[in-house]
Amino acid sequence: MASSLAPPEVPMELYNVNREKLLKSLREHLSLSSRSLSGFVFLQGGEEKTRYCTDHAELFRQESYFAYLFGVREPGFYGAIDVESGKSILFAPRLPDDYAIWLGEIKPLSYFKERYMVSMVYYTEEITTVLHDQYKGVGKPLLFLLHGLNTDSNNYSQPATFEGIEKFETDLDTLHPILTECRVSKSNLELALIQFANDISSEAHVEVMRKVKVGMKEYQLESMFLHHTYMYGGCRHCSYTCICATGDNSAVLHYGHAAAPNERTLEEGDMALLDMGAEYHFYGSDITCSYPVNGKFTCDQALVYNAVLDAHNAVISSMQPGVCWVDMHILAEKVILESLKKGGLLVGDVDAMIVERLGAVFLPHGLGHLLGIDTHDPGGYLKGAERPKEPGLSSLRTSRKLMEGMVITVEPGCYFIDAVLVPAMERPNTSKFFNHKEISRFRGFGGVRIESDVYVTSNGCLNMSKCPREIKDIEAVMAGAPWPIKDTTVVASGNGVS
Amino acid sequence: MASSLAPPEVPMELYNVNREKLLKSLREHLSLSSRSLSGFVFLQGGEEKTRYCTDHAELFRQESYFAYLFGVREPGFYGAIDVESGKSILFAPRLPDDYAIWLGEIKPLSYFKERYMVSMVYYTEEITTVLHDQYKGVGKPLLFLLHGLNTDSNNYSQPATFEGIEKFETDLDTLHPILTECRVSKSNLELALIQFANDISSEAHVEVMRKVKVGMKEYQLESMFLHHTYMYGGCRHCSYTCICATGDNSAVLHYGHAAAPNERTLEEGDMALLDMGAEYHFYGSDITCSYPVNGKFTCDQALVYNAVLDAHNAVISSMQPGVCWVDMHILAEKVILESLKKGGLLVGDVDAMIVERLGAVFLPHGLGHLLGIDTHDPGGYLKGAERPKEPGLSSLRTSRKLMEGMVITVEPGCYFIDAVLVPAMERPNTSKFFNHKEISRFRGFGGVRIESDVYVTSNGCLNMSKCPREIKDIEAVMAGAPWPIKDTTVVASGNGVS
Repeated sequence: MASSLAPPEVPMELYNVNREKLLKSLREHLSLSSRSLSGFVFLQGGEEKTRYCTDHAELFRQESYFAYLFGVREPGFYGAIDVESGKSILFAPRLPDDYAIWLGEIKPLSYFKERYMVSMVYYTEEITTVLHDQYKGVGKPLLFLLHGLNTDSNNYSQPATFEGIEKFETDLDTLHPILTECRVSKSNLELALIQFANDISSEAHVEVMRKVKVGMKEYQLESMFLHHTYMYGGCRHCSYTCICATGDNSAVLHYGHAAAPNERTLEEGDMALLDMGAEYHFYGSDITCSYPVNGKFTCDQALVYNAVLDAHNAVISSMQPGVCWVDMHILAEKVILESLKKGGLLVGDVDAMIVERLGAVFLPHGLGHLLGIDTHDPGGYLKGAERPKEPGLSSLRTSRKLMEGMVITVEPGCYFIDAVLVPAMERPNTSKFFNHKEISRFRGFGGVRIESDVYVTSNGCLNMSKCPREIKDIEAVMAGAPWPIKDTTVVASGNGVS
Repeated sequence: MASSLAPPEVPMELYNVNREKLLKSLREHLSLSSRSLSGFVFLQGGEEKTRYCTDHAELFRQESYFAYLFGVREPGFYGAIDVESGKSILFAPRLPDDYAIWLGEIKPLSYFKERYMVSMVYYTEEITTVLHDQYKGVGKPLLFLLHGLNTDSNNYSQPATFEGIEKFETDLDTLHPILTECRVSKSNLELALIQFANDISSEAHVEVMRKVKVGMKEYQLESMFLHHTYMYGGCRHCSYTCICATGDNSAVLHYGHAAAPNERTLEEGDMALLDMGAEYHFYGSDITCSYPVNGKFTCDQALVYNAVLDAHNAVISSMQPGVCWVDMHILAEKVILESLKKGGLLVGDVDAMIVERLGAVFLPHGLGHLLGIDTHDPGGYLKGAERPKEPGLSSLRTSRKLMEGMVITVEPGCYFIDAVLVPAMERPNTSKFFNHKEISRFRGFGGVRIESDVYVTSNGCLNMSKCPREIKDIEAVMAGAPWPIKDTTVVASGNGVS
């Protein structure tokens, strides 16, 4: 059996739940500010794009906020939610007659009404008329438009535009923070999709683990992963470009893009760092496995790997609502530094190392990020929240306290990056911490990252990713053992959400 | 053995040959117009894009004209060619220090000079200084910028912009038609890449043919194709989104996009129309196979299939330099109409049908298009050339005469599209041609397309695509026979370019 999984049905009720959640939050906010409970949440969906000047159509993927509220997979839509009545309205593009020949059946509006479980569907040219008709107040109806900063990209979401918008009042400030906060904690229906994305991706990681061989190209690992998740999981998109880094490429945190494209040949003795996650019906996964390509850890590889695994497990054991993510990052650093000290690579007091930000030398990226419809799901920094300034901590995509319903990646890593390591070994206040002789053996080692997607429950958390994590399990699976293995530990096999 | 192929080395000399070809054409043009042989061809490469407001990076693919002249796979470059000296200059983006941590080694300029075989490499902020230094003339140096219409998309290519451009004279008209025309006829080095893209894609089509089964999802066929071409061909991109159309979806010419996403379950009795082609190092392929998913053609399926195959073969037998593509389209129509008449679906005089444009009812798209770095490679309509206005012919992406070195797809099809068929059956001047009783059996049949990539030689042409085409071969391969089969016909197995 090539897979034990099959793509689940997607309940469109999910988007209704999302809309209701937004309405509740928005109405509360308006009441608290003594504002009228009227107007429309109004969003513009994404448009299909062509490549440069050609007619090469890029595969369309819906804009994430629009996907969150409406689940629409087709381009060219608008969506509205009446704040007063709670009615939801989709506006579909009117397609030209020859669409039926070239692109498919021209579906009646009733098809979209039924499929997306909204109250009404009209054509996009009817936006002004329909919203004015629906509006019960006086004066111009108010549109709550989406406009706000994405704290990962530093880009602003673009508010909707359409012909006739001047016949409305617009509010650019209210919606974004409220809608973003809705996306931060996941409903059970959302969790089920993220769980499936995790299940199929975990299985695909195991598939790659079993087939990897010295002499292969990195992109062949990517190809196997993509094939497994699409063939058996129906996942046409990945959450992000696959990072298939072997040898010293594993010290490049975001390897795999067009300028560094997974093209190295796997060599005897290499570690592989494979960061790959499928997206299922908009909801993503983000999983990293690290292991030796020949299936057997050396002592040095085991030392670094277990340093990271201990950090991964320590963080997951400590996660529960109220815990601050910055503290979790520092916990991960501490466990890693302690392991490196125990392994003879570092010397001195670990707390002193933390103060000198030595953790950031080995773990220059943040411990993890919110995950959902976007891989770096929004809401990491609430309005006014400041990003930490210290090395390492400044890379954190959130500094928030955990709360129930969050899905967050736990992805500690330990890398030997010359551009960071060498200056730290020379800097007077950090040089003393290094066992210079021992650590020189690790130059060119690359790095290890272990990444799971973790769901915060009311009193703890659940690991949604189900890959072999313990060295003995990885070696067993790579040697042909079935997965899951009966006796795996709780953290490694985490039950996830069923 | 999963594949008999391996990705070939890409000779960067290819881009030097392309540049020399452009220089020769451009200098000839300037001489003929008594203009000075000085200035610079100046192009801006593509930029990496993020999705909407997020930091989700789309996998970068170089802009095609820039790819043609420089072969650069990294984003953010500019390129210049000195018209007088012929020297080529790349301008690389200066990367921030932390690129080394996140995205990879910061390569020295010498790396790009060697890799891309250009005369010089500088940073993008040096464009103005370097070009002024290189310039031997008086006054402001002239830049030949790329600006012109893509006749498939009706979009204009965007001329390069950079800080300091006001220190140059610019010419927006000269370069585009000349460079476009260079791309129309392929060099042997280009042909070798197109041939490899064809080889791996043909093999992948055969792989899918062998594995397809009733009960599968259409996207599983896509997944198998993508996997084969990436795993064994190193093809990370496809030339276009895979069209995996079964049942009546096969009458949707550009099925497979996000709003019609290859998600139907294959049923007993279905025909499949699979239009899929991999891209290898910018150069593409575009191949369609049609066959019954259960591996055995019914009489009706064979009737329609052979009508299309006869048209495909008749066109390829007639292709040579000087032949007009519009005539080839009409030839295809004629063969198809004759077959349908022979099969009892149509009655009356085929020439009279052609006059009434009945061909366009069954074949509403053009017979084929230029293929290269773009799937719809530019140059289909020379400046001033008018697009035919008649139904069917108006969809032609070129009306040119064939010339040596062109690679053009030959893709006749026969579709039963209600939106086209029903009006034609009712229209007084076409109604008489239909055997209304017989043809009603084909409502919901879908369609058949057979598409090969064909290279025009000095006195004929070569089929670069190597899929089973004859019904007996398809049935044999689907039943497990090896491919190629020894006794295939010349047209079906075409030797291609080695």
